[in-house]
Amino acid sequence: MLRKILLIFLFIILNIGVSAAGVESLKLLEVKDGFNLYFDNKLILTHHVETPCIYVGKGNSDIDMYRGNFNIDENIVEKIGLSDFSITHTDKDVFTVSFSKKEISSMKVLFKIEDSRLTIEFLDYQKDINRLWLRLAANTDEFVYGMGEQFSYFNLRGHHFPVWTAEQGVGRNKDTYVTFLAEKDDKAGGDYYSTYFPLPTFVSSKKYFLHVDGSFYMDFDFRNSNYHELYMWGIPEKIVLNSADSYVDLIVKLTDFFGRQPELPDWVYDGVILGIQGGIDTVLNKLKTAVDSGVNVSGLWVQDWVGKRVTSFGKRLMWNWEYNSDMYPELEKEIKKLKEKGVRFFGYINPYIAIEGNLFKDAKKKGYLGMNSDGEVYLIDFGEFDAGVVDLTKPDAADWYKDVIKNNLIGVGLNGWMADFGEYLPTDILLYNGISAEIMHNEWPALWAKINYDAISESGKLGDIVYFMRAGYTGSQKYCTLVWAGDQFVDWSLDDGIASVIPAALSLGMSGHGLHHSDIGGYTSLFGIKRTKELFMRWTEFAAFTPVMRTHEGNRPDKNWQFDSDKETLLHFARMSTIYKHLKPYLKELVKENAEYGIPVMRPIFMHYEDDLIAHNIKYEYLLGRDLLVAPVYKSEATKWNVYLPDDEWIHLWTGKAFSGGNIEIESPIGEPPVFYRKNSKFLELFKSLKFS
Amino acid sequence: MLRKILLIFLFIILNIGVSAAGVESLKLLEVKDGFNLYFDNKLILTHHVETPCIYVGKGNSDIDMYRGNFNIDENIVEKIGLSDFSITHTDKDVFTVSFSKKEISSMKVLFKIEDSRLTIEFLDYQKDINRLWLRLAANTDEFVYGMGEQFSYFNLRGHHFPVWTAEQGVGRNKDTYVTFLAEKDDKAGGDYYSTYFPLPTFVSSKKYFLHVDGSFYMDFDFRNSNYHELYMWGIPEKIVLNSADSYVDLIVKLTDFFGRQPELPDWVYDGVILGIQGGIDTVLNKLKTAVDSGVNVSGLWVQDWVGKRVTSFGKRLMWNWEYNSDMYPELEKEIKKLKEKGVRFFGYINPYIAIEGNLFKDAKKKGYLGMNSDGEVYLIDFGEFDAGVVDLTKPDAADWYKDVIKNNLIGVGLNGWMADFGEYLPTDILLYNGISAEIMHNEWPALWAKINYDAISESGKLGDIVYFMRAGYTGSQKYCTLVWAGDQFVDWSLDDGIASVIPAALSLGMSGHGLHHSDIGGYTSLFGIKRTKELFMRWTEFAAFTPVMRTHEGNRPDKNWQFDSDKETLLHFARMSTIYKHLKPYLKELVKENAEYGIPVMRPIFMHYEDDLIAHNIKYEYLLGRDLLVAPVYKSEATKWNVYLPDDEWIHLWTGKAFSGGNIEIESPIGEPPVFYRKNSKFLELFKSLKFS
Repeated sequence: MLRKILLIFLFIILNIGVSAAGVESLKLLEVKDGFNLYFDNKLILTHHVETPCIYVGKGNSDIDMYRGNFNIDENIVEKIGLSDFSITHTDKDVFTVSFSKKEISSMKVLFKIEDSRLTIEFLDYQKDINRLWLRLAANTDEFVYGMGEQFSYFNLRGHHFPVWTAEQGVGRNKDTYVTFLAEKDDKAGGDYYSTYFPLPTFVSSKKYFLHVDGSFYMDFDFRNSNYHELYMWGIPEKIVLNSADSYVDLIVKLTDFFGRQPELPDWVYDGVILGIQGGIDTVLNKLKTAVDSGVNVSGLWVQDWVGKRVTSFGKRLMWNWEYNSDMYPELEKEIKKLKEKGVRFFGYINPYIAIEGNLFKDAKKKGYLGMNSDGEVYLIDFGEFDAGVVDLTKPDAADWYKDVIKNNLIGVGLNGWMADFGEYLPTDILLYNGISAEIMHNEWPALWAKINYDAISESGKLGDIVYFMRAGYTGSQKYCTLVWAGDQFVDWSLDDGIASVIPAALSLGMSGHGLHHSDIGGYTSLFGIKRTKELFMRWTEFAAFTPVMRTHEGNRPDKNWQFDSDKETLLHFARMSTIYKHLKPYLKELVKENAEYGIPVMRPIFMHYEDDLIAHNIKYEYLLGRDLLVAPVYKSEATKWNVYLPDDEWIHLWTGKAFSGGNIEIESPIGEPPVFYRKNSKFLELFKSLKFS
Repeated sequence: MLRKILLIFLFIILNIGVSAAGVESLKLLEVKDGFNLYFDNKLILTHHVETPCIYVGKGNSDIDMYRGNFNIDENIVEKIGLSDFSITHTDKDVFTVSFSKKEISSMKVLFKIEDSRLTIEFLDYQKDINRLWLRLAANTDEFVYGMGEQFSYFNLRGHHFPVWTAEQGVGRNKDTYVTFLAEKDDKAGGDYYSTYFPLPTFVSSKKYFLHVDGSFYMDFDFRNSNYHELYMWGIPEKIVLNSADSYVDLIVKLTDFFGRQPELPDWVYDGVILGIQGGIDTVLNKLKTAVDSGVNVSGLWVQDWVGKRVTSFGKRLMWNWEYNSDMYPELEKEIKKLKEKGVRFFGYINPYIAIEGNLFKDAKKKGYLGMNSDGEVYLIDFGEFDAGVVDLTKPDAADWYKDVIKNNLIGVGLNGWMADFGEYLPTDILLYNGISAEIMHNEWPALWAKINYDAISESGKLGDIVYFMRAGYTGSQKYCTLVWAGDQFVDWSLDDGIASVIPAALSLGMSGHGLHHSDIGGYTSLFGIKRTKELFMRWTEFAAFTPVMRTHEGNRPDKNWQFDSDKETLLHFARMSTIYKHLKPYLKELVKENAEYGIPVMRPIFMHYEDDLIAHNIKYEYLLGRDLLVAPVYKSEATKWNVYLPDDEWIHLWTGKAFSGGNIEIESPIGEPPVFYRKNSKFLELFKSLKFS
């Protein structure tokens, strides 16, 4: 009996919370030796003196970069759980909790509703604190998504994810031979979490999103059953959290917060963007080959428009951002002629400038390049050549680079470009704004995106020009017009091949960027492994069901299969470009929806089938909009394919056969990738006629 | 001027230490906001409120074992620097420092002289503390050695070393393909620190040794310029430290503390111990082949004396510790006959017993096996078969196993055996003594050694029987009669091939175990890689200059080169066995020196050339006693070899050519390994005649 009374005593809950106006509400329920914090009636934090929700500490880092691959070591010098607490309920929807550990460390945490979001702020802490651990309440049956572009996992539960923009890695799986070789030769193997575009932002299946406002190194750990641990190498400005009743509403709120991508230009959907190069004659010849074979071409992406150099990795570009008049004489005129035929011209830039070029000389003279501690221009080794870093934190330097874009790219008529890199900022470079490059490192791709965005925007070309980027960070949701999945390996590996593009698109979609595409056929060919005809054809048919179709010749064009390598490939390529073009009305609507509401074009199945638990763990299928279900074939020599369909009425695109939900096996020869449309779609007629296109 | 006064003020040192009686002295010098602790006038600890020498904390571990390979994860929950301190000088040579961090954590540390050693004890700390970091003062030019058997590094400076007995790994270098394959297939690749025989004991070139009295997981970090950090997953009983003026004196003191190995039996030096198997007829035939070719054989090591089984790894033994009368009928009689010919018989045992055997049934019935949490006998998967663990913490079980040794091994006339394994204790097994297996894990090999030692000792056979072990821990210095280097890969790799045996012997020698040898030719043959004739011959000539010469057929005997694989090998093998036998008087004296003073038989060059800084970083040469310098050839197709000689008068063994110190290049054909003797040696005549033997 006494025990029972004690138990009752232990569980007495003193409710000092009040409901906020509107849907969202903030509640703080005090329990014995602790408290629970609820937002929108969802348990967000649980604090108890024995299991604090907050730890502070000090640490030292040791970060080495080798060509965009980072080795990150740290030493945690001190870590203290702030177990003691006292709560002040200062105002409606504002709680202040003073956390401390006796006299040695303390931190005030402010929980408040701001713009209908829960905002968490950290105040009054010791100046030398540079490490923070925050534990959020979790359930065992919870799923977690997002954190930017994740290539190996879509549901993030059970793993931890560093937040650090870097090369995605070659192989990305310590059990594969490709990874082993890349790691051994160049420290470039990567791992499951390696990504160009990480975000300190996730979505929980409890239907809330959380974002940490900071750009220091972080690591979010979703391995524990009853808490998620956010580990931060700094104290964030704030943490923002919002909640909704459905995934769709949640993503709307998330993209309200981050901003959204503008619509793609209308001409994009008219066909494929051909990644070709080699001088104007070669380019025009290849275009002719394509067009003569019935390929619908909307653009030519000519990365060597700036000229090139040869290294052991393959042909590399001359990083001096103006067209090379030897290879592309009178480029403005050529661009004009092409445009008249409905073909746009794309170039290539990145935030570095090679030491050989006139831009380097100019930028160096003007003091627009990042410096090293010896007061010299900081040079990065990009593999047999060096380049300087335009200091994007210096307003004059940013303006200077914007002028380069306005004059040398937009000025000559480019309708788009690859805005490459962004993830290489070394942590020991000195920047104009005085902030440590270790902290600026993650933010760099977002600054890089904004330069491009502003240059276009200020030129009045938003919606007419599209640039595509691989690197990103907070801000890139608004400032990057299109993401491409980076440098996949030209094989069938799950972690770095064609398959990996699907979770990449889905996780990015759950993080607020809804426009994703990839190099058809993949990019990286090393160790004697080459892009095969089969891989190229499978990737082509996958790309036809993404927002943008674009090829890349890869790092070793001569040794890898290309769109024109044989007649069969050409015809398959042409047919898929037609199917893509046929989808234009549908794709346009999806892209508009993404621009207006942030609902990604490529979506996880569970976004529209919220109660489907199986769908929550599917990472290699997606919904292209509300009405198409796409299950790309990502294995070699597959003639049949297993597909999971959520509960609905589905029609197989190629046979017209009807299915309801469940696991099915479907014929999947090359040319008929597993695609299904919803019988109830308003685009029914468009889909029905697709196979005849 | 004011600044100068302030500086003087800052550096005022209040000497409250007193010199101890005898050579060693303990001094504690208080400085502003800290103190320095000196032992024997060597700076051992530096404490300052800003850079404490001691941190305490809490952590959780997550340890997975797969066939002796461990994946060790941990979460540091709390880590607090105990910056505040107060000193009590309670007695002559006794200082008590009360460390604390405000009110939240505290620990009393007792520094005292005990048996002329500095002893550090930890008192009055919070019960839930299970992590301890201790920082020792270091110099930039300091070298560190020891920590048990280290295969990849001899000078440990610049690296950190976990203390956890485990399989040594296959390949042991993430950059090698062998490691990659082993890791991928069996999580068995290992790393530079993987070892069967770790020790929480090191020797500094400041000429002190330090030992942590504990068996929990530890990690000693020698990467920092001005401190060594000892990280411990528990609070040790004590830390012991001693100092000397020379390495030799220091090793004498170190082995005084740990105990020393008895001398090897006299007959050991009469030739090679042949590792052969396959039933009595095969064994006797192979012996005949050897003897007929002039091989000096002192023993037959017949591991399949217990019978065998076949697995995909190769032929494995039947782990039921009694002779198999089908394969070895009337073994006692055979052993007697062999002994009359001067050939001893060796067997094989390990601390596990296979479920198929009668010993398992008996041990299970009597409750002598480790249990799992379901109350069942804990079974370990050893690769296609299961075995139980004899609970060595239970006195009756230990006695039972000793009786097995006394009756089934000593009783039938065995003169030795491989006492295999010891490093596999799973961390979730339940033991009789109630101590967590996570803590018992490291101690297990030492318990296993002691069982063997006691069985022999109680049988009055110490000095006549020799068992050899690969696994070890604190205590093994006294209780293990001979170490063998474990399972080298049958290749030329630095981290897991023939070369790795040298730092293994040297580091173990610096840790108090001076009797080391290895499987001639290596053991592990996987992934199509086989022991070559050249490797076998090089390993043979290396083994001739170690305390014991012994072969092993390897895990795949049929596919690997053996001593009798061709005539040339046999003759080389015979000649090297003669050279080894010729060295008997010298080796006997070295082994005696080891038994009496602990000076290892295989020694680092710097042990006798203390001021030679180059010698401090040499890991692939050694002194065999005071007078022989051995530089084994560990590369394929080497006909010349670079050798470093310390400043002395050296004679090349094969040519009689004289050298003084420095780097030289010497002819090194097979059969003439680079060996040099000291002109001043009292064994000069023995060495001179060696090449004619």
